[in-house]
Amino acid sequence: MFVGAEGTLGLITELTLRLRGQPEATAAAICGFAQMDEAVAAVIDTIQMGLPMARIEFIDAASVAAVNAWSGTDIPLTPHLMVEFHGSDSGVREQAETFGEIVADHGGTGFDWATRPEDRSALWAMRHNAYYAIKASRPGSVALVTDICVPISRLAEAVTQTQADIAASPIAGPILGHVGDGNFHAILLYDDQNPAEVAAAHDLSHRMVTRALALGGTATGEHGVGLGKLDYMQAEHGAGWDVMRSLKLALDPGNIMNPGKMLRQG
Amino acid sequence: MFVGAEGTLGLITELTLRLRGQPEATAAAICGFAQMDEAVAAVIDTIQMGLPMARIEFIDAASVAAVNAWSGTDIPLTPHLMVEFHGSDSGVREQAETFGEIVADHGGTGFDWATRPEDRSALWAMRHNAYYAIKASRPGSVALVTDICVPISRLAEAVTQTQADIAASPIAGPILGHVGDGNFHAILLYDDQNPAEVAAAHDLSHRMVTRALALGGTATGEHGVGLGKLDYMQAEHGAGWDVMRSLKLALDPGNIMNPGKMLRQG
Repeated sequence: MFVGAEGTLGLITELTLRLRGQPEATAAAICGFAQMDEAVAAVIDTIQMGLPMARIEFIDAASVAAVNAWSGTDIPLTPHLMVEFHGSDSGVREQAETFGEIVADHGGTGFDWATRPEDRSALWAMRHNAYYAIKASRPGSVALVTDICVPISRLAEAVTQTQADIAASPIAGPILGHVGDGNFHAILLYDDQNPAEVAAAHDLSHRMVTRALALGGTATGEHGVGLGKLDYMQAEHGAGWDVMRSLKLALDPGNIMNPGKMLRQG
Repeated sequence: MFVGAEGTLGLITELTLRLRGQPEATAAAICGFAQMDEAVAAVIDTIQMGLPMARIEFIDAASVAAVNAWSGTDIPLTPHLMVEFHGSDSGVREQAETFGEIVADHGGTGFDWATRPEDRSALWAMRHNAYYAIKASRPGSVALVTDICVPISRLAEAVTQTQADIAASPIAGPILGHVGDGNFHAILLYDDQNPAEVAAAHDLSHRMVTRALALGGTATGEHGVGLGKLDYMQAEHGAGWDVMRSLKLALDPGNIMNPGKMLRQG
């Protein structure tokens, strides 16, 4: 409750951390799919098999194009998954084999494991730089980074409908996400001196959120509610939003903790 | 917050469960140690290695004696660990090997893996019947089941001091626990027609709780606060107990949800 409250219930002044050991072995890979729904189906199968993925990331074809231009890579221009497994040597080998079979079942290609630290670093650097790569794909543009989350079973349609929306708009919006959680971002690139583009960006963002809620998802996956998504809280939480306010008043009756954010106001 | 509130915040009327697949492979084992602190040291090493134990249970020598009499087994009369690993075939084999090495490092003996379902069932039936075995070890007695939890680093001293306390009392109290959580129970067996034994049982239980709190633990590990441990809440939670009451009043201003339990009253 406290961690999800965005500072509205109080400040964390002391933390006790549970430490976990470095994994004995790590393997990472990237693989491509013809369609988004095949990539998502591979992820769903992996989760249902109980394979413990340490990371699983998704980038769409538009993001791949931006990453290629930025990092000098030549990844095929289709949706891709980037995945990492942790464990013992034999455990990671076994997980990699099983994941490889699942990927092949869904028509995945270009599948290769990076077990050397420098190869893994290169792979994840590509992902971590994706925002800058996407931003650089349209010099001078401003980025509106959207953030929604849906049940994984609805993820393929959420992404596909969002891509269609973006294609019908005057602006660009490569998509990437944390597919294991059903969470994704469109990086909407617009010219902030062009009123039509500004309006298109905000309209696309609004449509993403209402779509996420219609699919049983949430207005924000990890970026938070703050002020920007306050207007969606009633639709998402209904009577639960009043309960959140009751808890806020119980813990912070003077409303001094991050006032104005996230909760129904006054 | 809701799950730990013992019904004081409301009723659960609908649950959505996350299902997990049956593990592909399972292996269970029992092994003995000369002293309690060696068994606990083996568990601490296992956790620090990151070995994902599915279950890890502890039974003391007195519990072993009762289990032997009840189940017709002849387990040596020393502290024992019972452990189970889940995973793939090779994963479980690897975990079993590593755990075997840790046990040997701490002088554990009699170590053997049961991978056949019927052998595992027999092993866990022994554990699940331990309460009845202990109760039957003193026919006609009443059992006071205690329940405390301490940081695992303090578990060996908590158990050893509790055993010394029980040995100095007029009653018996075999000990067993969920050692991976630092949680254990003494099953205090007393004659409820004998005022000295009744007093001894309640005094031992009280001393266990105050010891747990002194060691940085909690008055109850899993059995709950309810009415029986209400008197320890102030000592355990301090000002936090008032916060719990504020949350209760926010969610249940009429105090109709499991009134009188767990929280500071009126």
